[in-house]
Amino acid sequence: MTFRNLKIKPGRLLETIHETASSFGAKGIWGPEKTQTGVCRLTLSDLDKQVRDWFINETKQLGCSIKIDEAGSIFATYPGKDNSLPPTAIGSHLDTQPTGGRYDGVYGVLSGLEVLRTLKENQFVPNYPITVINWTNEEGARFPMSIMASSLWSEQVDKKTIYNLKSVTDSEPVTVEHELKRIGYLGDTKASYKHNPIAAHFEIHIEQGPILENEHKEIGIVTGVQAYAWYKVKVSGKASHTGTTPFSARSDALLAASKMIAKGNEIATKLGGLFSVGILDLSPAVVNVIPGDVSFTMDARHVKDETLAQLVEEAKLEFTKISKESGKSISVEFDHIYTSNAVKFHPDCIKCVSDSATQLFGESKVRQITSGAGHDSCATSARVPTSMIFIPSRDGVSHNPEEYSTPEQVENGFQVLLHSVLQYDQLRKDRE
Amino acid sequence: MTFRNLKIKPGRLLETIHETASSFGAKGIWGPEKTQTGVCRLTLSDLDKQVRDWFINETKQLGCSIKIDEAGSIFATYPGKDNSLPPTAIGSHLDTQPTGGRYDGVYGVLSGLEVLRTLKENQFVPNYPITVINWTNEEGARFPMSIMASSLWSEQVDKKTIYNLKSVTDSEPVTVEHELKRIGYLGDTKASYKHNPIAAHFEIHIEQGPILENEHKEIGIVTGVQAYAWYKVKVSGKASHTGTTPFSARSDALLAASKMIAKGNEIATKLGGLFSVGILDLSPAVVNVIPGDVSFTMDARHVKDETLAQLVEEAKLEFTKISKESGKSISVEFDHIYTSNAVKFHPDCIKCVSDSATQLFGESKVRQITSGAGHDSCATSARVPTSMIFIPSRDGVSHNPEEYSTPEQVENGFQVLLHSVLQYDQLRKDRE
Ligand SMILES: NC(=O)NCCC(=O)O
Ligand SMILES: NC(=O)NCCC(=O)O
Repeated sequence: MTFRNLKIKPGRLLETIHETASSFGAKGIWGPEKTQTGVCRLTLSDLDKQVRDWFINETKQLGCSIKIDEAGSIFATYPGKDNSLPPTAIGSHLDTQPTGGRYDGVYGVLSGLEVLRTLKENQFVPNYPITVINWTNEEGARFPMSIMASSLWSEQVDKKTIYNLKSVTDSEPVTVEHELKRIGYLGDTKASYKHNPIAAHFEIHIEQGPILENEHKEIGIVTGVQAYAWYKVKVSGKASHTGTTPFSARSDALLAASKMIAKGNEIATKLGGLFSVGILDLSPAVVNVIPGDVSFTMDARHVKDETLAQLVEEAKLEFTKISKESGKSISVEFDHIYTSNAVKFHPDCIKCVSDSATQLFGESKVRQITSGAGHDSCATSARVPTSMIFIPSRDGVSHNPEEYSTPEQVENGFQVLLHSVLQYDQLRKDRE
Repeated sequence: MTFRNLKIKPGRLLETIHETASSFGAKGIWGPEKTQTGVCRLTLSDLDKQVRDWFINETKQLGCSIKIDEAGSIFATYPGKDNSLPPTAIGSHLDTQPTGGRYDGVYGVLSGLEVLRTLKENQFVPNYPITVINWTNEEGARFPMSIMASSLWSEQVDKKTIYNLKSVTDSEPVTVEHELKRIGYLGDTKASYKHNPIAAHFEIHIEQGPILENEHKEIGIVTGVQAYAWYKVKVSGKASHTGTTPFSARSDALLAASKMIAKGNEIATKLGGLFSVGILDLSPAVVNVIPGDVSFTMDARHVKDETLAQLVEEAKLEFTKISKESGKSISVEFDHIYTSNAVKFHPDCIKCVSDSATQLFGESKVRQITSGAGHDSCATSARVPTSMIFIPSRDGVSHNPEEYSTPEQVENGFQVLLHSVLQYDQLRKDRE
């Protein structure tokens, strides 16, 4: 029996998505149906522990062995014919944004689970083991580093740094290490591609953007990911009375920050990149006091590393110029938070996705696409052949409860994932 | 003995200012000296209760009778020769901003106390009683209505409204009524100019702006107060992913708000008024999520009521235009918080201040001035002859710990107040 004829259970994956969403963190009602909510399941929270326990239970029932690594990432490994070689991996994340939807990340892990369920039901034994990975803290929402655990595994960041990250969503900040221990997910497997290797990494995800929908495509063959850089920008002016301080005597940090935000957008537009400010804090925050201090995050993106660097440089220059023009004593500082370089996925993996998608839906329904967002696959692709599959997102909405893909789109993507992974499993065998 | 020869105790007023600042809420160190801090003494807080208790004790020792009204305002009345007529009042406030200095408000009340101390020591009995008033919640920082208790007394706002105001600086908001009861300052004197009348109201205050300092003047004879209007502006867009949402598909509420803030400043500059945003909140507040909702306060000012109305109208029009231009589905709403009309002070009171200031410091050292900020005197002037005295503020800084006037300036202002009030006391007698 060839893997292209495996019998699938239509609808079950979507049921599992809704079941876990409803049980573990449903939040943000956007429609009358029970399933029309988003999910808030911050990494290493109690809800995250619950969905992790559930996931381990489900995969164990399928005969998987479980490893938990030092960053809490879960590797649920389904045996193949030859278990002496590293598994082919399907990975993504079960954590969500505070205003997350039901699909981002979750769709990837649960599609992996559905692949295993399908193998089991069809009594199909792959050539090599297949592992489904739940990477810890992909979102970077609770602890401010996205793609955290996969970056530790790829040795692009060190353990101490991530263990000491402090939560930004708790009134009393706690560390990653504290929360790993608290929920019982500080594992003993070394978080390292050397010590806990995989052969390749596949990830299916919603596009989170409007391109596939606008072009009426079913599947995006993801060939890479744009670069992005995060900074914290601190504008220091002088708090002063709104009623008695003439414009000429002001050092209005918020007015300066407002001009910077508008300018950042202009620069990014000019360079064909993106610029966004997601967080802005000011003090003293009183109606009749001109803000003396404003800090905001800057999220800049571009498909080319060089152009991203240029975007950031221009923003720094222009912001400094604005701060000088905006008041007697305004200054601006930039703290680098994170940079993710542009990523090109592996031709072998891209080919598996491309062949599978084209065979299933035809040339006209698929297209190559660059991911706008970072994913755990960015980290894995630094070490092992990697690629991704996208399905359309309604209105391109993501990081929002209204995130939505149709049941058909969800199913289509899963089928492409199933075939891609098994095609890769076959490729490995052919090359042996 | 004429009041112009009263013996004063130089330095004592400043000592009292520093003593109360250090004892009741010192905060915000800006220099090495013990007195180089600001004060945070939010209205109806425990610290506010302590300074009130202290104030009542001090004035009782001078022979004052004490009334507390329904809004917690304290009237400490020093007897005159004829106590059948209402007192001449010296009023201001002992509450501060969260980032307040040592002078704003406090200087006014403690100068009143120093007037009474001076009368007592000189055994000078005025023709009519003199009352020193500590008005509750002038700042509007903890409960969002400035000039609160004096506006109740002038019957420009009703008791229910102020009793139900909710604190914005407590993590668990409480009401004005709750806090009045809690600190034991819900008095039984009706808060009304009809039931608890005064004959006139004098207030000394720091300028809180740079004009007197820039022009090397010692005293500002305040002839009126500019109008101001406060609004809450709510910008609704759509939260979405920063990496995957092209500019064309965004409804970025913060970008729109930033453009509004810059535009508001332009409009105010054009009209010769002021525009400031002191508070800005956004959600969801995640580095890689475009803010879906932003709300900010708008503080608009002008010396003319009509031009202020025009400023607000233009802002509303332009903000609506910006919201339409800024994304597929952005909208903007305006909630009116408060409007204080332009105020013209009373010629009799202005004359008393003008005569006293000129006699003490000479024509060249005084000037007439319009107050940029609202004061309790705005409320009283709706009902009784009122005027104010300003002293210079270093760098025009206020609502900031670094608020500063020199010891000499503090003393100068006090002398003008002393003479103005007693000249008015004499004027009342002359007119009887
Ligand atoms: N997919 C996703 O939201 N990843 C988080 C990192 C990013 O903002 O690109
Ligand atoms: N003086 C003062 O700060 N008053 C509060 C009302 C205003 O902002 O003008």
